Amino acid sequence: MDNIARAALLYDFYGELLTEHQKEVYEEAVFNDLSLSEIAESYDISRQAAHDLIRRCTKTLESYEEKLHLAARFSGIKHHLEEIREISEQYSGTEPSDQIKKICITCLEEI
Amino acid sequence: MDNIARAALLYDFYGELLTEHQKEVYEEAVFNDLSLSEIAESYDISRQAAHDLIRRCTKTLESYEEKLHLAARFSGIKHHLEEIREISEQYSGTEPSDQIKKICITCLEEI
Repeated sequence: MDNIARAALLYDFYGELLTEHQKEVYEEAVFNDLSLSEIAESYDISRQAAHDLIRRCTKTLESYEEKLHLAARFSGIKHHLEEIREISEQYSGTEPSDQIKKICITCLEEI
Repeated sequence: MDNIARAALLYDFYGELLTEHQKEVYEEAVFNDLSLSEIAESYDISRQAAHDLIRRCTKTLESYEEKLHLAARFSGIKHHLEEIREISEQYSGTEPSDQIKKICITCLEEI
């Protein structure tokens, strides 16, 4: 998993534990791909302050995952569900495969 | 879900965010069913302090769930997986049902 995907995953799980300000800046950097200079200008802070803020967010999100392992637990479940979906696709057009595939897809969408 | 089951669920998800002391006392109260008086004596604190500590833990765990909804997300997935397991059991002895049931059971054990 690359850094951006990892950041997005952890943000999806623990982002709500950041402050509103941290969330805003972090989203600009990670999801909207703004540079440090752009963020510094937008929020009227120094480039160094922007850098430190983003680094602190990453560390906070990582420390929640280190303690709770919930992103890892979810990934494990997702992997199993994808396996079930693949198997049910191989038997497509028969029951109970179609029924199972449908539930699997709904579940994967909710994850 | 009764209070104990709810407490156990939230503790399973967010317990690691409590302090060691909080975890110890909370486990005594919730899992080992110790009374406030017994906890007060064990930890050399007042009955009121024991009561407040446990209440604070419950509030902390609830507030993480309010923000993150991860226990609810997991419960939703668990429900879908149980549905898949039931369907695959109805078609027991045929493929791909047996294969799917096996993955499902592994996955449910990991949740």
